Amino acid sequence: MATTASTVTDLCRAAKAAARPLAATDSGTRDAALHAIADALVARTPEILEANARDMEAGREAGLSDALLDRLALTPERIAGIADGARQVAALPDPVGELIGGGRMANGLELKKVRVPLGVVAIVYEARPNVTIDAAVLCLKSGNACLLRGSSSAAHSNAVLAGIAAQAAEGAGLPAGCLALVAGGGREELAELATQEGVVDLIIPRGGEGLKAALKGVATVPVIYAASGNCHVYVDAAADLDAALAIAVNAKTHRPGVCNAAETLLVHADVAEAFVPRVVGALRAEGVELRADERVRALAGGEDLVAATDEDWDTEFLALVLAVGVVDSLGEAIEHVNAHGSGHSEAIVTEDLAAALAFERGIDAACIYVNASTRFTDGGEFGMGAEIGNSTQKLHARGPIGLRELCTFKYVVTGDGHVRA
Amino acid sequence: MATTASTVTDLCRAAKAAARPLAATDSGTRDAALHAIADALVARTPEILEANARDMEAGREAGLSDALLDRLALTPERIAGIADGARQVAALPDPVGELIGGGRMANGLELKKVRVPLGVVAIVYEARPNVTIDAAVLCLKSGNACLLRGSSSAAHSNAVLAGIAAQAAEGAGLPAGCLALVAGGGREELAELATQEGVVDLIIPRGGEGLKAALKGVATVPVIYAASGNCHVYVDAAADLDAALAIAVNAKTHRPGVCNAAETLLVHADVAEAFVPRVVGALRAEGVELRADERVRALAGGEDLVAATDEDWDTEFLALVLAVGVVDSLGEAIEHVNAHGSGHSEAIVTEDLAAALAFERGIDAACIYVNASTRFTDGGEFGMGAEIGNSTQKLHARGPIGLRELCTFKYVVTGDGHVRA
Repeated sequence: MATTASTVTDLCRAAKAAARPLAATDSGTRDAALHAIADALVARTPEILEANARDMEAGREAGLSDALLDRLALTPERIAGIADGARQVAALPDPVGELIGGGRMANGLELKKVRVPLGVVAIVYEARPNVTIDAAVLCLKSGNACLLRGSSSAAHSNAVLAGIAAQAAEGAGLPAGCLALVAGGGREELAELATQEGVVDLIIPRGGEGLKAALKGVATVPVIYAASGNCHVYVDAAADLDAALAIAVNAKTHRPGVCNAAETLLVHADVAEAFVPRVVGALRAEGVELRADERVRALAGGEDLVAATDEDWDTEFLALVLAVGVVDSLGEAIEHVNAHGSGHSEAIVTEDLAAALAFERGIDAACIYVNASTRFTDGGEFGMGAEIGNSTQKLHARGPIGLRELCTFKYVVTGDGHVRA
Repeated sequence: MATTASTVTDLCRAAKAAARPLAATDSGTRDAALHAIADALVARTPEILEANARDMEAGREAGLSDALLDRLALTPERIAGIADGARQVAALPDPVGELIGGGRMANGLELKKVRVPLGVVAIVYEARPNVTIDAAVLCLKSGNACLLRGSSSAAHSNAVLAGIAAQAAEGAGLPAGCLALVAGGGREELAELATQEGVVDLIIPRGGEGLKAALKGVATVPVIYAASGNCHVYVDAAADLDAALAIAVNAKTHRPGVCNAAETLLVHADVAEAFVPRVVGALRAEGVELRADERVRALAGGEDLVAATDEDWDTEFLALVLAVGVVDSLGEAIEHVNAHGSGHSEAIVTEDLAAALAFERGIDAACIYVNASTRFTDGGEFGMGAEIGNSTQKLHARGPIGLRELCTFKYVVTGDGHVRA
């Protein structure tokens, strides 16, 4: 299963060689390949389950937590779900060749700004073997050759999934080498992948802070870091408090382990007396552990509530834990969010148009919500189709990383012998 | 004149503090500031000339070449030209707040994708003091706080220019600290600037390979490298040879020292006999030194033409030097360009629609030209207004870096109490 270092380079070169013919395929061919992948996954389910059983057994022996084992586990239903996801991506509009600007210039030159694939995209991910297929179909749909590097804990599952997908894709007419798994979990192989300047066009890591740090130290190719999210819900003086309650509870408890879950609740002092006891009660009823500032403790619970530390305002709990504080103004809320947020998803609950506008403009983040839960930050919810992660960086991709974000563009300029005077 | 290391950090922090109020200004205020800068430059011309005279004197003493001294020199006319450039940027459409996508989602959420400033943009440049103002006005117009780091050879000119501009901008209502010169030419200060993660949002170096290498080694903030250009003109079998001659000569000789000048001419074998002697004669008449492959030498000039080395095909001459070769097919031309080009600007001359389309799709470059000179790669020519450089990277900005490329975007999502089910 281990890949030698030279094989990483070989796979990268093969992917680069495949990238140009792949970019030239029409969308019908790429979509047919995605359907072929979906069909093959369903047809070869027993093979996948067998490989997955080996990973599960090794995981149990290695003492993986139940949560990690659940992430690792495949079932016929999960495989059918992965296949269905591939068919949904096939149904999305083709980003390749999309005309995104242009016109006739003053001198008669015709200018087109056309979306084109990046070339070779590498995805580095942990645990979940479904990412093998999710990432592959997004890359292939967007005309990019795809290099996958999963974790060693899912090595058997990933190898079978990637093998089936590559075979199906090539069988459907995509160029050989356009999809490959870089096996081997070592940091040396990661470093080799991350230094393929001129060969690999983009690396997207999907994983924890350790993976990010490992890449930051070595990467010379461009990296888009799938984001962490220290997200806030701010309940304004002019909030509808029923809506605020529903949004705060949803943003924290709907799926607490993901990056768009809320980690801090801020309440305007004018509504604190009415709202804080209600929201504290509702959150605790949902099993949320609160870290409260002095004013929240005075309004609800007192000694019973854990006092928030300075660190809590900067922490992405990724669990049923929420920091709660009172602010004296909208301006103070905006300052707090900009100082402590990670630029991911930030919500205001207000009926006041001016407050909504000030929040929308004043917060420096990928996604600003007015009277809606932060949980909507998602490529599917944004009408972009599937996503490969969320970005909090400002260059190229901010927010959900979907098909368009896996592309670049080129200018095509047509004249009839134009020379510059 | 020297800035201590701690002052670099102070300037960066001041710029970050200014970035948010600057982003919130309306375009009228920013445009008025640009006009105020232009007026102040004209009004204070004697001061600028005096500072420039000191740089010129030091440059002559240091033995700078005439070319470098010419780049360094300011005159009343050049200052008026710089002021005029600022007024032209003021007249461009405001990129800030531009709605670039969105709609009503299936669940009724209203989604807007809105262009917003990056925050703090640093420009690092060499010699030409006009860049001080060109860069400043592009940053301010796009709502970005601007840090300028010029070269020590223009230190006096840059200090006066930046001082006048900052004073005029603040006088017109832009926040203090939104424009600052990071004086001092040392590599340590560059490193300090380039490691301001979370403070500086983007660095754009405008300069030679040494500057790029210095940044590559240390930068932790995002960098967009203004590009080098190994650009090609390919004369197809179906070319109009008169147009081909005009384009080849223009692309090489119009301004040989810039990145969109042609460095290699490729001629299809079918038209080589008719075209090569003509183009060789025309180029030599313009003083171009040729590096020719064997077939070109056989067709025109023989021993009289310097034989091209392998290295010549990869060289950006930036001078009146051109590599010339014959290819047997369009496919071979595309292979050559993709193998040796730098992804900047690539031209085909052809009357054949299929050949044009194959070239347009097959070449991986920022700008593809069909029957036009590579010299048109320019923000002004592309209808983008002024530019701060050209990018050959694929992420975020490819081709001319104009006002929009100095921005990022945010999603603004408005609901009426929406929670995720």
